Amino acid sequence: MIPPDHPRYRSLVTRERLARCAKEGVVAMEGLTAHGRGEAFDYLIGERTTESALLAEQTAAAMLLAATRPVISVNGNTAALAAQEIAELQKACGAIVEVNLFHRTEARVAQIEKILRDAGAEVFFGPAEQLLPLSHDRAWCRREGMYTADVVLIPLEDGDRCEALVGMGKKVIAIDLNPLSRTARKATLTVVDEVTRALPAIARACRDLSAEEKSRLLSTLDNHYLLSEAIREITARLSHALD
Amino acid sequence: MIPPDHPRYRSLVTRERLARCAKEGVVAMEGLTAHGRGEAFDYLIGERTTESALLAEQTAAAMLLAATRPVISVNGNTAALAAQEIAELQKACGAIVEVNLFHRTEARVAQIEKILRDAGAEVFFGPAEQLLPLSHDRAWCRREGMYTADVVLIPLEDGDRCEALVGMGKKVIAIDLNPLSRTARKATLTVVDEVTRALPAIARACRDLSAEEKSRLLSTLDNHYLLSEAIREITARLSHALD
Repeated sequence: MIPPDHPRYRSLVTRERLARCAKEGVVAMEGLTAHGRGEAFDYLIGERTTESALLAEQTAAAMLLAATRPVISVNGNTAALAAQEIAELQKACGAIVEVNLFHRTEARVAQIEKILRDAGAEVFFGPAEQLLPLSHDRAWCRREGMYTADVVLIPLEDGDRCEALVGMGKKVIAIDLNPLSRTARKATLTVVDEVTRALPAIARACRDLSAEEKSRLLSTLDNHYLLSEAIREITARLSHALD
Repeated sequence: MIPPDHPRYRSLVTRERLARCAKEGVVAMEGLTAHGRGEAFDYLIGERTTESALLAEQTAAAMLLAATRPVISVNGNTAALAAQEIAELQKACGAIVEVNLFHRTEARVAQIEKILRDAGAEVFFGPAEQLLPLSHDRAWCRREGMYTADVVLIPLEDGDRCEALVGMGKKVIAIDLNPLSRTARKATLTVVDEVTRALPAIARACRDLSAEEKSRLLSTLDNHYLLSEAIREITARLSHALD
């Protein structure tokens, strides 16, 4: 359907994949719109891992490795876009992988857990309870999973839940292409990068970082600096956009 | 479903409406993603009509009123978001309203034509032919409609078709929140504003502009200036984003 000579071919093919996942119920309709927002910001950072994003990815790796009980929270968009990358990161850092949805039904949870298992992830499952201080379906999580985690990685998450998790005293690592979002600003650490670039970069850092590097990254974590660097990248790009 | 205390309540409700329209087939799945991209840029311009956007809207009105055969091209997203606004603009400027889709089926065309008629628009219909120099379904249009138009208003359009229409010698008015998009840069005039703010502003200008103002607007049209002003608004906002 999409002509290969279309200048946004790759982006259109990804959208088509998400659309297919939406028809199957894996991706919420609202998830398609959220993806579009991400696309816009990815375009603005040049569709590449910036220097500050790489620093954030290395710091994320150090946090996951230093954690007692790290959890990776997965929603429909993340599973549709990056199930394999989630499985690889789990292997590299040993985190629990738990499915948590905004538009939650038991059927969707099961569908997404299956996608993750098929991609090679070990999925934490069992009965969920309404444990997070939130008014919607994302209050649901597992007592021995996210509820007792000390570090939670939330790729493609909304601000509400990020804030709730931080309020519970957890260290939260967000992957969010919008450096101005509530998620980005409330998280302990924000990786401003596209999820299929960010997750492998974090996994790579998990394998490669020395003890010394890890400790330096943890002690110099400055999320405000990382966000302002992301914004600087965008404004620099914008200022030459019409050349 | 969406809690009214959610800080992005309005935006989520609009997304939910689009999701419903997607389930009914009016909005293409890919249209949801495109909407998300628009949302991101709307956020960056402050979710308001900027001064330069208002100038663009007044110029658009002058172009539509000066045209011999103005056509407003409507796709699924525009019909879902702004059918009434299209009908009102048609009353104000006398343009032909014609449905043109990227993801085209006869059923979708009929559905969208019905939405527009229900909102009070007079819809140009009849057999379409593959008349535009494009490799996909959007080549389809009507010989006595868009094909012979001298001025075409394309809200929420893609760059491909914008370029094709300009290449056919038509004056193209785009409504596009992304000032960097191909659509925005290829159009004769680009309105960088959200469609439900832009269309009523153009209709208002159609009713209010004096002959003198119209002629001044037409003679001073400078799309590069309008786009650089939109970018300046975004960078100004970004530079204070973390304050």
